[in-house]
Amino acid sequence: MTAPLHDPPPAGPGRALPDTQQGMRRRNLARVMHAVSSEGPLSRAAVASRIGLTRAAVSTLVDELIRSGLLQELGPERPGRVGRPGSALAVSGRGPAGVGAEVGVDHLAACVVDLRGEVRARAVRHGTNRGRAPEPVARDLTALISQVVAEAERQGLRPAGLAVAVPGLIARDGRTVVRAPNLDWHDTDLGALLPGGLPLTVDNEANLGALAELWLGEGTPPDFLHVSAEIGIGAAVVVDGRLLRGTRGFAGELGHVPVEPEGPACPCGGRGCLEQYAGEEAVLRAAGLEAGEGRVGLLATRAAEGDENVRRALRQAGTALGVALTGAVNLLDPEAVVLGGALAALAPWLLPSLEAELARRTAGPACPVSVSRLGPEGPLLGAAHAVVRAVLDDPAAAAGQS
Amino acid sequence: MTAPLHDPPPAGPGRALPDTQQGMRRRNLARVMHAVSSEGPLSRAAVASRIGLTRAAVSTLVDELIRSGLLQELGPERPGRVGRPGSALAVSGRGPAGVGAEVGVDHLAACVVDLRGEVRARAVRHGTNRGRAPEPVARDLTALISQVVAEAERQGLRPAGLAVAVPGLIARDGRTVVRAPNLDWHDTDLGALLPGGLPLTVDNEANLGALAELWLGEGTPPDFLHVSAEIGIGAAVVVDGRLLRGTRGFAGELGHVPVEPEGPACPCGGRGCLEQYAGEEAVLRAAGLEAGEGRVGLLATRAAEGDENVRRALRQAGTALGVALTGAVNLLDPEAVVLGGALAALAPWLLPSLEAELARRTAGPACPVSVSRLGPEGPLLGAAHAVVRAVLDDPAAAAGQS
Repeated sequence: MTAPLHDPPPAGPGRALPDTQQGMRRRNLARVMHAVSSEGPLSRAAVASRIGLTRAAVSTLVDELIRSGLLQELGPERPGRVGRPGSALAVSGRGPAGVGAEVGVDHLAACVVDLRGEVRARAVRHGTNRGRAPEPVARDLTALISQVVAEAERQGLRPAGLAVAVPGLIARDGRTVVRAPNLDWHDTDLGALLPGGLPLTVDNEANLGALAELWLGEGTPPDFLHVSAEIGIGAAVVVDGRLLRGTRGFAGELGHVPVEPEGPACPCGGRGCLEQYAGEEAVLRAAGLEAGEGRVGLLATRAAEGDENVRRALRQAGTALGVALTGAVNLLDPEAVVLGGALAALAPWLLPSLEAELARRTAGPACPVSVSRLGPEGPLLGAAHAVVRAVLDDPAAAAGQS
Repeated sequence: MTAPLHDPPPAGPGRALPDTQQGMRRRNLARVMHAVSSEGPLSRAAVASRIGLTRAAVSTLVDELIRSGLLQELGPERPGRVGRPGSALAVSGRGPAGVGAEVGVDHLAACVVDLRGEVRARAVRHGTNRGRAPEPVARDLTALISQVVAEAERQGLRPAGLAVAVPGLIARDGRTVVRAPNLDWHDTDLGALLPGGLPLTVDNEANLGALAELWLGEGTPPDFLHVSAEIGIGAAVVVDGRLLRGTRGFAGELGHVPVEPEGPACPCGGRGCLEQYAGEEAVLRAAGLEAGEGRVGLLATRAAEGDENVRRALRQAGTALGVALTGAVNLLDPEAVVLGGALAALAPWLLPSLEAELARRTAGPACPVSVSRLGPEGPLLGAAHAVVRAVLDDPAAAAGQS
């Protein structure tokens, strides 16, 4: 039904489509959708001038998008008037929608986002998934998904696809969880355990969090490094508005960049990896606290209260992040580093030492580090928006005309 | 005249062109050129089946490319026969050609490569450029360029552009050398000092070496990390057949990835950077040798003779490379690491410790490391081929029909 979500087309809408008359029409449909989506409401004439096609060509495309329920006309048409009225076009608040879901270590969640980017349904289930088998987790997640899908359908929305965020390495097939250490899942075909009927993609939570930042963040540049954490440390590299996935789909493993070549052994097989200094367990240990649920909140509370052990542990983690990020910045030359996920909540105590470390290792101006406003909501929103973007990138496919 | 070389279009030919009838024609011209270039000689029918257009459409495109001198027909057409003969098409050995040039620390070079990828003219001038001002170096390089261009023109070739490899950081304008420490050049507008008349691009030598590996290497995958060295250590990241340049054009600075966070200070402002362990000066120092010209050759000779000091120094450099590459591989998940430039000649003594270090820090199979066959020729060939690729990617522009 929709285009594959796992490798969405690059920045220019629909670039992957074949270069034929039919392909050109599909790309132009995408151009119209993107113009109205990012700048609408717009008149047909305004769309035509923005995308450089004639008004006649745009009208044909617009009519098709209205028929498919992807665009709608605002305001009443004046009856009796000859020719097309100048009424403004907007992206439909009904029609296709994106379903996002998240398997967190401590929670499950699902939501539906419409083509306008609004969250129209949302459901969360708290409770640890650590050590639970994939089957019961998938059953619980399926229940949440059914709930939000039913609610969205009641509102006249039509789910166009499902994307699921998982804290682990996902194969490039977009359905197999190769390794999720904090769930203790290995080589799990999660796609087979989730509801059929919708095009499905499973993706790494750090990837989806980075995409959310790209699409929803304020002033996020097209080239940035997104660093997030739930229990482990994840990162995602966005280049020219595209996620860098890597050959196996494993790119972004900043947590396993060596920070001290002969430091403590890491379960990944390495030594002195960043996760051994800045991962949740390492920080709790350094602060003299025990591991458990909701520990990031505890760290933030204690740090805010002035607990010097916690603050010192977070300063040390910031320094280690600074060393690893110096290497990443030298390799990738991003425009910015964005801290997201659980790191966003801890930023006040991580940032000073992190930025000092980056600055002292850089001759010129250091790469700017900012903090995501999406925080832990990023992966879930990124999942739903990935489906929405796929519809905008190839509206003809979403309308069943591929 | 030709498309800008500094940011060549991505894998699919001519993707950056506008999506109009005219743009479609230009992209299809590129498809024909790429098909004949990579699989030719081919008949019109074979081209049509490979690129999925009708034979009639292909014939029109082919006629245009023959008129522009980019394709030629092989074998005599049989006179008196009705309709188009089935004679095979090949890329022209005359017509447009790419001019490459290189500013090395110890030499200057220029060459001309035709659309078939053959080197048709070549000139080299040995002698150090360390500490020489940009103006006399540019004058000497211009003389070499004039020499190879004249030789190419005598052979019926028509230079379509000039690309110049420089061991330094190049701004994204493709002409300014921001910093070339081993030449002691800073903020030098090299473009202004080189001959006018041809579209010009200045690029980092590690970038051009990586592109040469991508285009000319045997079995080079589309996702790899290319590590090279002349005096410093450079690297280039190729993703999906595209060079990752970074926001400022500075991506690939593997030499400044921290290997020991509190190691020796580095001129870049950092501490314990890879270059402090595996750069030429560091290796010479560790081997008890003095810096000077041709030292890579000396290291290779001494290592081959069994000099234990040199071998130990190279082993240590390999270990440091392994630590930095572990981080890079975790971040980028490339399909392979390729050692090029001066590192290729030292590979027999670097590789064992480098691979051991990668393996001991990786739980699964480690990323394979291979050695470039192009060695120090890479940047010069990459420069000339960058011009050739730009012609193949937009033949209409090269034919003056843009």
